[in-house]
Amino acid sequence: MGADHARTIDRRIAGASVVAIADFDHARAVAVASEMRDAVTFADGRTLIDDDGVDAVIIASHDSTHKELVLAALAAGKPVLCEKPLAPTAVECREVIDADAGRGLVSVGFMRRFDPSYMELRRRVLSGEIGDALLAHCVSRTVDTWPGGDSASTITNSAIHELDVVPWLLDSPIAEVSWHAGRTSRNSGSRQDPQIMLLRTESDILVTVEVFLNARYGYDTRCEVVGEIGTAALTLPSQVVVDRDRTRSVAYPADWIPRYADAYRIELQEWVDSIDGGRPSELASALDGLAAGLVADALVISMNERRTVRVER
Amino acid sequence: MGADHARTIDRRIAGASVVAIADFDHARAVAVASEMRDAVTFADGRTLIDDDGVDAVIIASHDSTHKELVLAALAAGKPVLCEKPLAPTAVECREVIDADAGRGLVSVGFMRRFDPSYMELRRRVLSGEIGDALLAHCVSRTVDTWPGGDSASTITNSAIHELDVVPWLLDSPIAEVSWHAGRTSRNSGSRQDPQIMLLRTESDILVTVEVFLNARYGYDTRCEVVGEIGTAALTLPSQVVVDRDRTRSVAYPADWIPRYADAYRIELQEWVDSIDGGRPSELASALDGLAAGLVADALVISMNERRTVRVER
Amino acid sequence: MGADHARTIDRRIAGASVVAIADFDHARAVAVASEMRDAVTFADGRTLIDDDGVDAVIIASHDSTHKELVLAALAAGKPVLCEKPLAPTAVECREVIDADAGRGLVSVGFMRRFDPSYMELRRRVLSGEIGDALLAHCVSRTVDTWPGGDSASTITNSAIHELDVVPWLLDSPIAEVSWHAGRTSRNSGSRQDPQIMLLRTESDILVTVEVFLNARYGYDTRCEVVGEIGTAALTLPSQVVVDRDRTRSVAYPADWIPRYADAYRIELQEWVDSIDGGRPSELASALDGLAAGLVADALVISMNERRTVRVER
Amino acid sequence: MGADHARTIDRRIAGASVVAIADFDHARAVAVASEMRDAVTFADGRTLIDDDGVDAVIIASHDSTHKELVLAALAAGKPVLCEKPLAPTAVECREVIDADAGRGLVSVGFMRRFDPSYMELRRRVLSGEIGDALLAHCVSRTVDTWPGGDSASTITNSAIHELDVVPWLLDSPIAEVSWHAGRTSRNSGSRQDPQIMLLRTESDILVTVEVFLNARYGYDTRCEVVGEIGTAALTLPSQVVVDRDRTRSVAYPADWIPRYADAYRIELQEWVDSIDGGRPSELASALDGLAAGLVADALVISMNERRTVRVER
Repeated sequence: MGADHARTIDRRIAGASVVAIADFDHARAVAVASEMRDAVTFADGRTLIDDDGVDAVIIASHDSTHKELVLAALAAGKPVLCEKPLAPTAVECREVIDADAGRGLVSVGFMRRFDPSYMELRRRVLSGEIGDALLAHCVSRTVDTWPGGDSASTITNSAIHELDVVPWLLDSPIAEVSWHAGRTSRNSGSRQDPQIMLLRTESDILVTVEVFLNARYGYDTRCEVVGEIGTAALTLPSQVVVDRDRTRSVAYPADWIPRYADAYRIELQEWVDSIDGGRPSELASALDGLAAGLVADALVISMNERRTVRVER
Repeated sequence: MGADHARTIDRRIAGASVVAIADFDHARAVAVASEMRDAVTFADGRTLIDDDGVDAVIIASHDSTHKELVLAALAAGKPVLCEKPLAPTAVECREVIDADAGRGLVSVGFMRRFDPSYMELRRRVLSGEIGDALLAHCVSRTVDTWPGGDSASTITNSAIHELDVVPWLLDSPIAEVSWHAGRTSRNSGSRQDPQIMLLRTESDILVTVEVFLNARYGYDTRCEVVGEIGTAALTLPSQVVVDRDRTRSVAYPADWIPRYADAYRIELQEWVDSIDGGRPSELASALDGLAAGLVADALVISMNERRTVRVER
Repeated sequence: MGADHARTIDRRIAGASVVAIADFDHARAVAVASEMRDAVTFADGRTLIDDDGVDAVIIASHDSTHKELVLAALAAGKPVLCEKPLAPTAVECREVIDADAGRGLVSVGFMRRFDPSYMELRRRVLSGEIGDALLAHCVSRTVDTWPGGDSASTITNSAIHELDVVPWLLDSPIAEVSWHAGRTSRNSGSRQDPQIMLLRTESDILVTVEVFLNARYGYDTRCEVVGEIGTAALTLPSQVVVDRDRTRSVAYPADWIPRYADAYRIELQEWVDSIDGGRPSELASALDGLAAGLVADALVISMNERRTVRVER
Repeated sequence: MGADHARTIDRRIAGASVVAIADFDHARAVAVASEMRDAVTFADGRTLIDDDGVDAVIIASHDSTHKELVLAALAAGKPVLCEKPLAPTAVECREVIDADAGRGLVSVGFMRRFDPSYMELRRRVLSGEIGDALLAHCVSRTVDTWPGGDSASTITNSAIHELDVVPWLLDSPIAEVSWHAGRTSRNSGSRQDPQIMLLRTESDILVTVEVFLNARYGYDTRCEVVGEIGTAALTLPSQVVVDRDRTRSVAYPADWIPRYADAYRIELQEWVDSIDGGRPSELASALDGLAAGLVADALVISMNERRTVRVER
């Protein structure tokens, strides 16, 4: 992820340069730096953050290091874009928010907000052309999972994108959740897969969310908003349709990389532009990161206790 | 509905004739009979049922009369196709089942089982090409509602089609249900609209059902089955795509009549063929009608008591 | 084809019965008759035609026998539905038209006119919603060919359906044609395949037609009409969409049977209804059959002489 | 167009800066320069081209000035990206090619080669998955035209994109063409609109091209390649599908800007990267610009003389 961001900034973003790279595995930092137009490496992230040549910092290291590095960037007064999760617990997220002290220096990498199709969906929902939103249906399917995850990590690592994008899309925070499951796939290892979640926004819009990580057939994000006089939904992105072997077909991507390549690029360009312009970015903030985390926490409780759970504020 | 069935048999079905029509409003019976190739009218349904020229009976009268007329047909030993609901309560459904005494004379008009797209969906699900089913998502939207309905009638009159078709499609009865709702449409009158239902089959497949009767935009039935290696879903039926006014569009029907015209025709032809061939029909049976009614009863309890409810068997 | 028509009338059509069957291979006639509700066989077609129990006749025998049998039906004063071609030459078609003497007893089996999607396309074109038609694009692809055909038979046997449906759709006869070809498929045997035809209606609408009989991937009929303010086109008929193996796909039929099953049924019902009602049918007439044949003749000349050819009237 | 390119480089492209702008209307140059991060203006293009601070030049001035400015850039030994047409006549194009003297300094702005959907279409065609290409069908429709164009300018200004992209896509130059027309739209002013062109590649693939500039309904580019075992086609780009007012619809853009925004960006990034890397770019070359112009010339002859015309080489 870090290498991808570095390549995007170096090759696809106007107005910014990758000047320094650090990685726990130094050889990897050296390899990525050698791909850049002109970048040095640092032995550790804190030294990089404090370096005078560095104006802003992207953190895509191991989840356990996020908080500490974000705090270092805040101490240095530098804008920082942190991949989700901002911190493992709500208490620690609040620590980051306190350290930012309202400066708006922290952005969280919820790139779906910059996906052109999600942006268009939001524009249409907010335009009123489908009337007031009443329901939404989200589906998030991936091809397979890494070994070692469990049912809770499906919520905190994967569903988290829905938990951020739904309030952004419907313009209302999630107030209440419940978690549901039936049969699990034989491909799911030890985790329950698929999972169904019901989210209720503060504005009382009910949202169904299916997360199915071993869906096998392809990487597929769906979202439909149902309003009083119509609906609006993401289309399946496709460029070419093929007729062959008695079928008409379009291709699914194998993972999120082609699906969200534009979103990452646009997100990074907006981040750079906002720093350049000295204005707040449109990226998810530390507060947004906290909000999504609190909904995830509520879903884990609902899963464990099999009851509807109010989201802490 | 009765007039539609009469016209379909008279004009679109091989091997049967409409010979007699009765209606509470006799003038209407006379009007419909005059459209037929050769049909007489009777002043009341029971006389029609007992007439020697009548081999089989379709009942599409007011719901409150269904049970009595079906029992009359059973007493006369004649095959009878009754529009849903077979009877208003489970006790009365069981009375009909007892009167049939295993003869298989009673069919219930759940026409979706004969819709070509549902048949193809079922064929593909049962073929194994998407792997074992894990989830299903159903959506049933209509343009508007008649005045006078309430939230329970959404379940017992409209969702009832899903409650029959889901077990047929997934080959397992519905064992447990829960009912959910958020914001209601300002077009919904006194009923909660839309409604979300979760159904769990005995085989532990979880099914989400959205029923939205004042969806305004069109008559729209959706169903997707999610399996271990793929998914299969109904397409939006369409014949022509139009490019105009900056949009590419296909039309939605305004109601169920064009959407299910083929299903009604194929259902009636199968009913006639089964009578002609002296074999059991593939239509929904009285037991199927009872099963759907028991699920509806459980959903009404879930709605009133806001809890998950086991379906009575 | 004859057996299919017999089964459709016997099993799917109201108001008619199959009473008699004849076939050059008598055993085959007996086999098909045995499937019917109540049909006898005749040793030859002319005896069948003259039989008093026979009210109307369908001819689906070898092309070389069409004219003689249609003339026999006309002599007997009975409505006759003849599969295309009505007769091998324009001269012989005119002989049939003369024998009919304006009675309208002859219909030709151009079933596309009864395909629900073509009917809907025509309704929309004529409704004015796309403005006046300026262009049309037709594509007719099949999976493979029988051995023995040649480039001319592609026109006279396959493209003939487009040559009938285009004037019906655009409400103007075809006045001028040209035939074009490039590379031929290695699967095409001795015939040129694919072929491109340009048709010009009397109303000066230009129509491109692609006919590709060894297209391999599926049976596929396309048609788009381009008007002054929009376009209308046939959709790909589909009932179920499947996600599997990194693709979203819908199925193509392998041949015309599923594609046009409804069209054949509706055509036959209209034919029966028109006879029953003593009114002219909406099927293609002998004059329509002649018109399509004259366009085919012009295309064969264009193919042989590589020039634009006016259609004889 | 020039302002758009400047904005794209300034805001969306890595590794390049807009340092100078010239325009016949100097106030406009000043206005655009003021939007840039750091750009000066020049009173005329030749001075700009010769300035030491300028490494490479984009020409988007009036068509009549293209050749002179490209020659100036070549004299200065600087890479130059020229919007189509490179020069008004083949003789003048060859003059540019001679001046380049094999250095590969000249690129022509045929951006469709960088449209992600065209790139994916080409990849699939060349992959062999549809077998050898036999036919292609191209459609290019726009909403309306500026006053003053004529039938020839439809070919030389609009169809020119197809004339470049078809040989690139099918990997064979266009050897022969014919031009066809029927009814013209009442919205077309003095030009024939729509027009149909048949192109034949040297490899004998036949290509139909419809160009319809006053299509009214939207900006729409279509392309299907038909191979021996299948077909591949561009999809309609769409991000959101809306259900409303009895229709399911996706939006068409009003012009080329949203349709080809990605293509322009990717083209410019590739141009910058190639200069940066000291390697030939993948953009269309001066030879490609000449080739498309020669096909356009042949089509104008075909239009005027109503005959099939061989393309000059």
